[in-house]
Amino acid sequence: MHKIRIGIVGYGNVGKGAALAVGANPDMELKAFFTRRDPDSIQNPDSSISILSIDSAADMINEIDVMLLCGGSATDLPEQGPYFASMFNTVDSYDNHAKIPEYMAAVDAAAKKTTAVISAGWDPGPFSMIRALSESVLPDGDSYTFYGKGVSQGHSDAVRRIKGVKNAVQYTIPVESAVEAVRAGKRPVLETREKMKRDCYVVTEKDADEAAIEKAIKDMPHYFADYDTSVSFIDADEFLEKHTEMPHGGMVLRSGKTGEITQTMEFSLKLGSNPEFTGSIIAAYARAAYHMAHEGLYGAKTVFDVPLSYLSEKDRHTLIKELL
Amino acid sequence: MHKIRIGIVGYGNVGKGAALAVGANPDMELKAFFTRRDPDSIQNPDSSISILSIDSAADMINEIDVMLLCGGSATDLPEQGPYFASMFNTVDSYDNHAKIPEYMAAVDAAAKKTTAVISAGWDPGPFSMIRALSESVLPDGDSYTFYGKGVSQGHSDAVRRIKGVKNAVQYTIPVESAVEAVRAGKRPVLETREKMKRDCYVVTEKDADEAAIEKAIKDMPHYFADYDTSVSFIDADEFLEKHTEMPHGGMVLRSGKTGEITQTMEFSLKLGSNPEFTGSIIAAYARAAYHMAHEGLYGAKTVFDVPLSYLSEKDRHTLIKELL
Repeated sequence: MHKIRIGIVGYGNVGKGAALAVGANPDMELKAFFTRRDPDSIQNPDSSISILSIDSAADMINEIDVMLLCGGSATDLPEQGPYFASMFNTVDSYDNHAKIPEYMAAVDAAAKKTTAVISAGWDPGPFSMIRALSESVLPDGDSYTFYGKGVSQGHSDAVRRIKGVKNAVQYTIPVESAVEAVRAGKRPVLETREKMKRDCYVVTEKDADEAAIEKAIKDMPHYFADYDTSVSFIDADEFLEKHTEMPHGGMVLRSGKTGEITQTMEFSLKLGSNPEFTGSIIAAYARAAYHMAHEGLYGAKTVFDVPLSYLSEKDRHTLIKELL
Repeated sequence: MHKIRIGIVGYGNVGKGAALAVGANPDMELKAFFTRRDPDSIQNPDSSISILSIDSAADMINEIDVMLLCGGSATDLPEQGPYFASMFNTVDSYDNHAKIPEYMAAVDAAAKKTTAVISAGWDPGPFSMIRALSESVLPDGDSYTFYGKGVSQGHSDAVRRIKGVKNAVQYTIPVESAVEAVRAGKRPVLETREKMKRDCYVVTEKDADEAAIEKAIKDMPHYFADYDTSVSFIDADEFLEKHTEMPHGGMVLRSGKTGEITQTMEFSLKLGSNPEFTGSIIAAYARAAYHMAHEGLYGAKTVFDVPLSYLSEKDRHTLIKELL
């Protein structure tokens, strides 16, 4: 069997997660990572995997079937998405929701003879799929997306920038009473602040002013001021023991009516590792990109465009027999 | 706007649920029900909707875009599926899992110039979609499907056939400890009997032997003997008050690992009315059948073959902007 030959752009957490996922899929093989850094500067724990300069990717068009773009949405993907889609089938997890149409147009213009699956993380990703499915099935209804419990890197960074903070992590946590109101079919109107609260665990520098730090966090506009925020000060050992993993998750609910009767659809993720799960989604969509490209289905695609049969390692007959 | 003109075959609970769903979708209109019964024998509460003989359907090829086949899987659909697919785009919820490949082949052979979406209820249906998605994303994992709490018509019928039973309903209920073990990432090996228990509510004839009835239920092979079964005797008033609706639901879970880390995906349905929800799914897939037929995507299709964009009333651009 020809294995799907995978390249990964970006040697960060998501890229490493994608590599793990490629290893778990017997019909795929990882050819190389590509990085903007000097490859020689990177500690490579697995000598069987090549880490190459991003500039060398263009020379490997015939050696790679699908390129997984695992950079960030802020600056990496707007540049890398169209660039790589002009040469390779690609998958990315572009997640700047407001700018997806613009990003999609740029990638689509470049993907003349390639298939480029964009925004295939978990939101956008399966969460979007459930929103579309549930809204189509229950047109008289309301959809809700809750995030957490999980680490928000942006909010953790914001806390770490406060004077006197040595290390910090911020967990986004769904407000249980809001979730229960949705499950009960009450279809509440919820502001973002009513849907989630924020818990911070902070290690301070020696002799730091904890009261001032707590106030700086809770008053921080946009990030914390509009939310119920709790701040706990802990020591470095406890931080290391309890707060270095990257769990995340969340849920999408739709509560609707058929006639007078309430119907509820709910999808949830409990992720021990956010980047490894994101990498797993990207790897599954690499299979779709590969097969769609073989059928000439070129251009930018989203999770709304890809039939589930393209994601599975199983052929259509087996899939129908075993999973339908 | 041209509305999608819908016909419904079968004036039963699912057919009526589908009609309700068609009414909730502004881009659809219901042209007629078709029944095997004498239409004049049916009490029609809504004179604006025609109830016609199934034999007249063939004359309405030019008046109906999609025919929703809402008959049963045991005898109706094996005959009606291929027959109607030879003339109309169709959607059905054929749910005899073991015979789906055979049914699909028969429908596919008939659907030369039509699009026939088969097995689009909720299992098969969204439950199958989640099984395929989650297995593709987490290849190192185990999937679990739990049913309930909900009414099983087959088991309720079996109880009602026992001598001395006047009325009865049977609820299938997931075993909570099994669900929790899956959620905790323990990946237990579960027999069907370990996943669900069965609760029966029974109204007896006057002077019936309750002990004998309870024993007849609990010892019934296949239906109850292999399960934890509880039997409660209630009076006719309580039955009428509490046990005449048709709730159902269930959940699909996949627990898997990426490297050493546990990841869990869970999808659940809590349905106030099983037939109305099934009808809502069928209606959503009618939109897909209609649009796929316009693109010449003929033949038998399953939920694995239909991209989500075809289900939505929203155009692709709006869908991406609002729901991705």
